[in-house]
Amino acid sequence: MDKGSSSHETQRFGSFGSFLRRCIISILSTAPIPNHIAFIMDGNRRYCKRKNLMEGAGHRVGFLALMAMLRYCYELGVKCVTVYAFSIDNFKRRPEEVQSLMELMQEKIEGLIKEESIVNHYGIRVYFIGNLKLLSKPVRLAAEKAMVATASNSRAVLSICIAYTSTDEIVHAVQESCQEKWDEIRELNASGAGYGLIELDGNRREEGEHYIGVTDIEKHMYMAVVPDPDIIIRASGETRLSNFLLWQSAYCLLYSPSVLWPEIGFQHLVWAVLEFQRNYFYLKEKKKA
Amino acid sequence: MDKGSSSHETQRFGSFGSFLRRCIISILSTAPIPNHIAFIMDGNRRYCKRKNLMEGAGHRVGFLALMAMLRYCYELGVKCVTVYAFSIDNFKRRPEEVQSLMELMQEKIEGLIKEESIVNHYGIRVYFIGNLKLLSKPVRLAAEKAMVATASNSRAVLSICIAYTSTDEIVHAVQESCQEKWDEIRELNASGAGYGLIELDGNRREEGEHYIGVTDIEKHMYMAVVPDPDIIIRASGETRLSNFLLWQSAYCLLYSPSVLWPEIGFQHLVWAVLEFQRNYFYLKEKKKA
Repeated sequence: MDKGSSSHETQRFGSFGSFLRRCIISILSTAPIPNHIAFIMDGNRRYCKRKNLMEGAGHRVGFLALMAMLRYCYELGVKCVTVYAFSIDNFKRRPEEVQSLMELMQEKIEGLIKEESIVNHYGIRVYFIGNLKLLSKPVRLAAEKAMVATASNSRAVLSICIAYTSTDEIVHAVQESCQEKWDEIRELNASGAGYGLIELDGNRREEGEHYIGVTDIEKHMYMAVVPDPDIIIRASGETRLSNFLLWQSAYCLLYSPSVLWPEIGFQHLVWAVLEFQRNYFYLKEKKKA
Repeated sequence: MDKGSSSHETQRFGSFGSFLRRCIISILSTAPIPNHIAFIMDGNRRYCKRKNLMEGAGHRVGFLALMAMLRYCYELGVKCVTVYAFSIDNFKRRPEEVQSLMELMQEKIEGLIKEESIVNHYGIRVYFIGNLKLLSKPVRLAAEKAMVATASNSRAVLSICIAYTSTDEIVHAVQESCQEKWDEIRELNASGAGYGLIELDGNRREEGEHYIGVTDIEKHMYMAVVPDPDIIIRASGETRLSNFLLWQSAYCLLYSPSVLWPEIGFQHLVWAVLEFQRNYFYLKEKKKA
């Protein structure tokens, strides 16, 4: 078989795959589609070792898997996708590995806002979620630029958790809530309504006026820009959250297909969505409660 | 076969089961044993429906399953066991169901401190974890009595999460942390070191002296009395945390056998422990990080 006919075969197979995908998506769409799916992209390094690839190649293949998965999600009508790209704990890896990951991220983030990117194709607004101060300056600037460049996109959302852990997010939200309360009290103070401290003593705190509650904390979460996820999919069969969206996953389905992230495919997304649909009414009740 | 010989057979089979269990425990004990296992006892009501039992009977069978599971855990050398007995959301069930669950809990809690109870057999210290103010008075009193009665036990720990949700726990810890900071500032105030509010203004807060951090929040968690769980086992095949130990499960294995809680057995515990042992060194590194 010559090269031309082989490439023709591949193309035909590709079109058939895409046709099949559209059929499955039509069937799935007869039931509720999750609003928000989050991914823990676990197994890039193991994939690299298993396939004897050069160091860092696993993350590049992982990036391709992510692009394919984003396409599947947005085609399916999922409005928000969140990915765990880099945890605060990852900074403890070897400096060369961190450095090379940062460079890869900078390159990919800059690629996101190019004309032909998936972001422009699907009209995606990109958020970078996490303690961005911890990033190297070029990565932080690229992230900020991408957020500004996509701020007017409204068809879908992609949240990229970077320099993120859930405990850091919660503590940050607590600190912001405290600051807000301090400011409120200081204003009261300035207006002559008395010292804030007195407002918060043993007897008065029951009134809860300056008392931090769930809504205060939620308002200040990095993830407050999107609704809580309906499904978290973690590749490589591990059933751990690894400090990812702990607060937001209270009533969320966790699904752990036993493939490494670069091997994840459309079939895993379908399975997760079917599981979501099976539990839909139950989870809806829970979330309302 | 007469009744006597049948009961003799059952007894022989029971002893054989117990012998087999001890053998498996010896084998498992050659590798690290988890320090803390937590259970979400899901599926009691579904079990009841499936078996056409009287309403509430599912919870009674579930309690027996819990007692068996506690015995397996403590025999295996697990030092801490935590169970999700009643969530704050459960108060939204039908009043009669809540009432009957409260009565069952009171009865079982009172039973815990009896001479022949599992608690005395294994020297277990019992904690009731959650917003105990939400409980009816008799249940709260029974819980407090059991905590006092077992306070000097030190061989193992049983934490019973009752009127608990993780978000409630985190918010409670935040409020306690704030209160502590207020008190510190008030003391400084009284000692003439200036108003606390001024200490916390925009410029000074960077110093972090009165700034709430991870350790403050952790110190005030209800669950601070025990280390974080190594494994969370949720019965009935559901892979959700349902607002249980979100903060504490960042690096914890989740295992969801597909049996309803009353059907859970020793084999499920063995499987979870094997999975823990397989990931032991990786998880240890993560926790240290």
